[in-house]
Amino acid sequence: MIQEECGVIGAYDFDGQDVGIDLYHGLYTLQHRGQESCGIVTNDYVRLYSVKGLGLVNEVFNKDNLPTLKGKIGVGHVRYGAGEDEAIPPIQSRYCKGTMTLAMNGHIYNYEELRSELEQRGAIFQSTSHAEMVMNMIAVARTHSHSVEAAVLEVVKRLKGAYSIVVMSPKKLIAVRDPLGIRPLAVGKRGNRYFIASETAAFSVLHAETLFDVKPGELIKIDETGVNHFTENVGKIKPAHCVFEHVYFARPDSYLDGTNVYEARVGIGRELFKACPAKADIVFGVPSSGLHFALGYAYESGIPYGDGLVKNSYVGRTFIKSTDAVRYEAVHIKLAALRGAIEGKEVVMVDDSIVRGTTCANLVKLVKDGGAKKVHMRIASPPFLYRCKFGTDIPDRSQLLAARMTVEQMRDHIGADSLGFLPIEAFERVGLSPDCYCSACFTGKEPDENI
Amino acid sequence: MIQEECGVIGAYDFDGQDVGIDLYHGLYTLQHRGQESCGIVTNDYVRLYSVKGLGLVNEVFNKDNLPTLKGKIGVGHVRYGAGEDEAIPPIQSRYCKGTMTLAMNGHIYNYEELRSELEQRGAIFQSTSHAEMVMNMIAVARTHSHSVEAAVLEVVKRLKGAYSIVVMSPKKLIAVRDPLGIRPLAVGKRGNRYFIASETAAFSVLHAETLFDVKPGELIKIDETGVNHFTENVGKIKPAHCVFEHVYFARPDSYLDGTNVYEARVGIGRELFKACPAKADIVFGVPSSGLHFALGYAYESGIPYGDGLVKNSYVGRTFIKSTDAVRYEAVHIKLAALRGAIEGKEVVMVDDSIVRGTTCANLVKLVKDGGAKKVHMRIASPPFLYRCKFGTDIPDRSQLLAARMTVEQMRDHIGADSLGFLPIEAFERVGLSPDCYCSACFTGKEPDENI
Amino acid sequence: MIQEECGVIGAYDFDGQDVGIDLYHGLYTLQHRGQESCGIVTNDYVRLYSVKGLGLVNEVFNKDNLPTLKGKIGVGHVRYGAGEDEAIPPIQSRYCKGTMTLAMNGHIYNYEELRSELEQRGAIFQSTSHAEMVMNMIAVARTHSHSVEAAVLEVVKRLKGAYSIVVMSPKKLIAVRDPLGIRPLAVGKRGNRYFIASETAAFSVLHAETLFDVKPGELIKIDETGVNHFTENVGKIKPAHCVFEHVYFARPDSYLDGTNVYEARVGIGRELFKACPAKADIVFGVPSSGLHFALGYAYESGIPYGDGLVKNSYVGRTFIKSTDAVRYEAVHIKLAALRGAIEGKEVVMVDDSIVRGTTCANLVKLVKDGGAKKVHMRIASPPFLYRCKFGTDIPDRSQLLAARMTVEQMRDHIGADSLGFLPIEAFERVGLSPDCYCSACFTGKEPDENI
Amino acid sequence: MIQEECGVIGAYDFDGQDVGIDLYHGLYTLQHRGQESCGIVTNDYVRLYSVKGLGLVNEVFNKDNLPTLKGKIGVGHVRYGAGEDEAIPPIQSRYCKGTMTLAMNGHIYNYEELRSELEQRGAIFQSTSHAEMVMNMIAVARTHSHSVEAAVLEVVKRLKGAYSIVVMSPKKLIAVRDPLGIRPLAVGKRGNRYFIASETAAFSVLHAETLFDVKPGELIKIDETGVNHFTENVGKIKPAHCVFEHVYFARPDSYLDGTNVYEARVGIGRELFKACPAKADIVFGVPSSGLHFALGYAYESGIPYGDGLVKNSYVGRTFIKSTDAVRYEAVHIKLAALRGAIEGKEVVMVDDSIVRGTTCANLVKLVKDGGAKKVHMRIASPPFLYRCKFGTDIPDRSQLLAARMTVEQMRDHIGADSLGFLPIEAFERVGLSPDCYCSACFTGKEPDENI
Repeated sequence: MIQEECGVIGAYDFDGQDVGIDLYHGLYTLQHRGQESCGIVTNDYVRLYSVKGLGLVNEVFNKDNLPTLKGKIGVGHVRYGAGEDEAIPPIQSRYCKGTMTLAMNGHIYNYEELRSELEQRGAIFQSTSHAEMVMNMIAVARTHSHSVEAAVLEVVKRLKGAYSIVVMSPKKLIAVRDPLGIRPLAVGKRGNRYFIASETAAFSVLHAETLFDVKPGELIKIDETGVNHFTENVGKIKPAHCVFEHVYFARPDSYLDGTNVYEARVGIGRELFKACPAKADIVFGVPSSGLHFALGYAYESGIPYGDGLVKNSYVGRTFIKSTDAVRYEAVHIKLAALRGAIEGKEVVMVDDSIVRGTTCANLVKLVKDGGAKKVHMRIASPPFLYRCKFGTDIPDRSQLLAARMTVEQMRDHIGADSLGFLPIEAFERVGLSPDCYCSACFTGKEPDENI
Repeated sequence: MIQEECGVIGAYDFDGQDVGIDLYHGLYTLQHRGQESCGIVTNDYVRLYSVKGLGLVNEVFNKDNLPTLKGKIGVGHVRYGAGEDEAIPPIQSRYCKGTMTLAMNGHIYNYEELRSELEQRGAIFQSTSHAEMVMNMIAVARTHSHSVEAAVLEVVKRLKGAYSIVVMSPKKLIAVRDPLGIRPLAVGKRGNRYFIASETAAFSVLHAETLFDVKPGELIKIDETGVNHFTENVGKIKPAHCVFEHVYFARPDSYLDGTNVYEARVGIGRELFKACPAKADIVFGVPSSGLHFALGYAYESGIPYGDGLVKNSYVGRTFIKSTDAVRYEAVHIKLAALRGAIEGKEVVMVDDSIVRGTTCANLVKLVKDGGAKKVHMRIASPPFLYRCKFGTDIPDRSQLLAARMTVEQMRDHIGADSLGFLPIEAFERVGLSPDCYCSACFTGKEPDENI
Repeated sequence: MIQEECGVIGAYDFDGQDVGIDLYHGLYTLQHRGQESCGIVTNDYVRLYSVKGLGLVNEVFNKDNLPTLKGKIGVGHVRYGAGEDEAIPPIQSRYCKGTMTLAMNGHIYNYEELRSELEQRGAIFQSTSHAEMVMNMIAVARTHSHSVEAAVLEVVKRLKGAYSIVVMSPKKLIAVRDPLGIRPLAVGKRGNRYFIASETAAFSVLHAETLFDVKPGELIKIDETGVNHFTENVGKIKPAHCVFEHVYFARPDSYLDGTNVYEARVGIGRELFKACPAKADIVFGVPSSGLHFALGYAYESGIPYGDGLVKNSYVGRTFIKSTDAVRYEAVHIKLAALRGAIEGKEVVMVDDSIVRGTTCANLVKLVKDGGAKKVHMRIASPPFLYRCKFGTDIPDRSQLLAARMTVEQMRDHIGADSLGFLPIEAFERVGLSPDCYCSACFTGKEPDENI
Repeated sequence: MIQEECGVIGAYDFDGQDVGIDLYHGLYTLQHRGQESCGIVTNDYVRLYSVKGLGLVNEVFNKDNLPTLKGKIGVGHVRYGAGEDEAIPPIQSRYCKGTMTLAMNGHIYNYEELRSELEQRGAIFQSTSHAEMVMNMIAVARTHSHSVEAAVLEVVKRLKGAYSIVVMSPKKLIAVRDPLGIRPLAVGKRGNRYFIASETAAFSVLHAETLFDVKPGELIKIDETGVNHFTENVGKIKPAHCVFEHVYFARPDSYLDGTNVYEARVGIGRELFKACPAKADIVFGVPSSGLHFALGYAYESGIPYGDGLVKNSYVGRTFIKSTDAVRYEAVHIKLAALRGAIEGKEVVMVDDSIVRGTTCANLVKLVKDGGAKKVHMRIASPPFLYRCKFGTDIPDRSQLLAARMTVEQMRDHIGADSLGFLPIEAFERVGLSPDCYCSACFTGKEPDENI
């Protein structure tokens, strides 16, 4: 199981109504992309209003602080894995043209080089946040650019990596997606109010319709003049959307670059059966990310779908591992075998991926202890072989099980009766073509970034 | 959707090892029975150790306070819906024979009468907690009983209602279940350590085996002499387990009086199709309680099972309802329609029950807005017609939709294309016989309590 | 330096206005009597309203919770040194006649015996609080008394110890002082609003006038019929007010049984000079309790009064003692020598008492390190020789410096150039006559308590 | 009563021992200079360690976080009146030469101009903190300076205002005082450990000796090479120490530029009597800042010194003003008249200053209500006539009582029987010569700043 990414959201209301509550509901919907901290900053043309904190959306916002978020423009952020020295995003600053607020979902891999350049000019950095560095770059670019959007477009040409950035200047809401389109970003609308968000699922809960995906490299500016597209960085290189947004990060009800995540997952499950069939009494997924792959596997195979594991939805960030003589692996508290469903049966268990193999081995043991006669493990992605330079949290090659073992060795290691991975070619068959999706973590083939 | 009940747990280690960590893991597993407060009290023969607080298990316990829970005997509690004046359970007191700690899952409906009797003797009450009243009764009974277990057995004869009580005296762990056996209570064991818990799911995560269900009216005493059964209040009246433990309260991996909850739910789903068939493209449940009924409905009908709704698992107790001009019903944040699965289709949606009908109407609208062509609503229990005197949180008859409308009127009210309820007779066919299960909320026929 | 006692307050408004804010201001003024916890309970004839918490008045009360304290009757408490198992006072309960709320400043030394009696009747105790025990006794007495005040008067006859108790029943505010009058209690009035408080200083800040001190053993009942005196326990034994209220506990602006604390302290300072004169360049007190004795000493001696020590008013309960190689005794952070005032001078330093002698020795060292040529230590009370059975926090005789050493040995021990104590006879000369003041901690002669 | 300033501290240990605990004790001693937030950052050559928070020293630091402050170099800060957008000082950043941590007590009045210059170069600002701006200036200067100390010296030439700055670079502790020497700054030493602090009182509690005051404009650098003085900005203009450090800000046990605060205050009190004599029965000060002036007044006049007001030391930042019908001015809770000392007497009451006159009028009323026959108000400074551009928190001229009224009108306004101010010439007689002290708030004559 690999880790989540951040989520960003922005809103602009042409009728001048407050957007704070909508941003709050939107962040609730993006919460799966980051649980470490969250924040909203709004802007009523006069000043900024800000509520931020460590913790979940329902911990940071409350009925006292939400109404303070006044203003018709606003940006929000849910954060995964922040550096301890960082200000909680969205980051606010003042620069030569007034205020600038920035929320960013992403990773800039030439960060050190770009920061060093700024430092040589006399810049200081109060954190190691990539967002703070991007803000500095925009401020410098703005000293010779005629507008903030021009400055952002100039900066984008220098950044290497994956990112979706939302910037709020005193009168504008600006969003830009990296030229490879690695992270998702889309625009929605309800009445005269426009939204920009990491996932379209946010639009659904806001009763907004999805207008379009921001194109790789495209900049959207929303201000009094309307919704404007800046496409000078678009189309110069092949897109390379992250395939793991479909496999793991995104909500099933989101549409990423036109493809519904649920349908992609069911499709992957079908492909997984075609490539690695099994005979079994029941097929089930590892909650929550494995469930829809399992559905597809069941549809294609005709094996009954069921639940083989019960997830404890209360096991939070602060779960304390036992130091008792009897070892409870965390997995036993989080997931319990559903003996009534699996006892005496051959089962197919589907999970999204294998990283180090530890969790998978624990799950197989759990299910066997729960009475399953045979466990056929099916993985809804190809074996992880390479680290991701775009920031997806995959460990070093030395820690990747698949980089050290054959499939048969892995099967033996996790204790399953059979083990099958999705073949890389299957992605294309469910609409995730190598022409526009990056699968460098499986293949080592990195996309071309020079625009 | 009706509300949850409390959960209790107790542990006794014959080898003298600390039981605090096990109680903590156990409470994690019982968390679904109460999220308002939780607490553990342990006892090492010298003194009591206590950690309690408002909030979830992962909020109250931490790596600093868990190790303070020393001792080989202990009790724990997760609380639903506490009175604001109450001490957080388990309640500790001192009485003529030393300390007494009590955790209680239940409701005593002759509370006012019993309390008044105690007050006439000069007792004071620091809360409206039924548990405090029971403690007072035990202390009074103990002034003329030869043991604490004898005092508890005497008290049980006076209590009217539903309850599972765990009492810790200086050297004993005592548990008693109400004579109707309304709330569940079972005993488990790992090595020389014994557990008593509201649900057997707690034993699984503790790697303990389930030994037996406590019989209706039975008292179990665990002390240096071993595990002792006191059965003088057993078998004098017909048991009347609460059928809603199976339909809603309990975890699917628990076994209640011998019946697995998951299997009962799948069975109910099958019966629901037999009684109220539908033609559809997909069947799905309302997460989380409706899922397993939907599985059974799918199995029996052959209609493909799928997911039609996405649950946001982060919407917690503190969710703030919008006061914005645009109304987002809470249901839209908690549950989103999975358009990719339901668009253009006829669907069967299964939920556990209908109380006032508001939630159900919202769900039907949500699913139709999500593109479903037709919605066949199926309810995995008979219509609610009566209030429960045993404490299950069902509102007054005046607020129960089924008490005011015909099924056809209800269908129209919720906006579904068809509506079907489980017939009352179906319970028997899945093993929940009227001979030992109470279904007074559907039939109005209350069990006989006079022992 | 010995420790503080609790403080209690009550209010009754004949015009029916809310008393919560007044109780809050009153507790601020009594804060010196207890810093561990505080609470206010009010009553509007319909229900009780309560705000309580661990910490100081300014930590527990805030602009959100203060307005919730509705009602024309109320009681408040500041607590010193609570048992960890205790509910925060004022304690609320329900008994046969409705609600009872009790705040108590005091110590019952036959607590064990009285509690045991109640336990034999079947009572339970949720804490070791003496107040909870007193509440139980009142409830039992009420089963055969014709009124709550009659029940309280009956209970008083059984209690041995020092106490001021304020009880709020549904329609009455009742206060009672122990028959020896050890702890202070007085009644004040502003318009149609009456106050009962541990110290009259509370009345001053409330712009109320002091009406009278409650007599030893007297019970005051305030209800619709007015302010009523019950004197059946009054005058049967000699009063024995605690002399340490004047020496240490009380605020200088309070009047205790007719004597102003500031004037008593200045008088004691004068007596101290008469008994133990010294020649010096400056006289100063140890802040804060020694200051007014030093003033008196200066007045009588003609030696200039000054400040020799600076108190850091921010050193709170949570001060962390260094574990560094260099040892900073806490006294160095709390008090610093004022070199500018004492360098090269002979000084008289006045403190209220010597218990173990450690603090005093540290102070002498501090002042000498600060440049004083000679230090004449003067103590504004006789040597402590006996433990106090009425609850004043004086340690066992084995730890009392004066019980083990002569004055000359003590002088040597603390490093002073001379040392003088107040002679016991001096108390009478400042109005604290042995006929009505207890000085058993100095003399061992305990007052007669049998009424 | 005017408001407090910030306090800064630094430490460098040549033996390589941790300085965290010393910085904590030091901040306790500087707490009176700022209560809004505090922080310590230490440095062990490898990385920085930081503990910061809103609140008092005893709220922010605890036994868990103090030991994490490892390292032989460190800086600390207590903050008064921070902007809400500011990071809590000391501020940490990274720049071209590694880390830089800065604590600053002061106010830069050409802030807007300097910041605008930086913004034109592309800098961003995450707060309105003057310290963040100074850090940016240092970083820019460092791009062409050969050392951080050279960069700081260059920056100092551009800053207009009052400040003491402590900077920690990876291997150096640097301190600089503004060229006018408005805010105090001194260096102390204990063994091989050196301290830099706003006030020498901090050295006393650390058992360190005061080595010297940092000269106006001087920069001190402590690193492996020892303690180095950089004096290129020293002596070019006349010093102008703030006279209000003596009158109000500093602790009485501090020595500021060679003068002890206590002695200066006693001296001022003597001068005040000489200039504005009164006949009275008692003289007392308004706690706490007025006490030592009153002592001097008593010494010079021969009128007995006493206490006329009792200060409630528990009235903290969160005191809630009544909204009740009866108005309690905050002053009545904070200060109570000591009737026993003043009733029926003519009194002299001494306070440090009059700003708007409201507090003073309340005090006179309080003392008269407390029984004083006549109140002679004496003010230990000349009338405030001008705003302070160096940041002392004096309101606009329009709000200064003395700017609108004659002394007789002021006397009438505050309700006193006589009113006297310190003549401006008196400062010189107590050692605070206009040659090196600024009294622009009284005279309007601002010091020359052009070096």
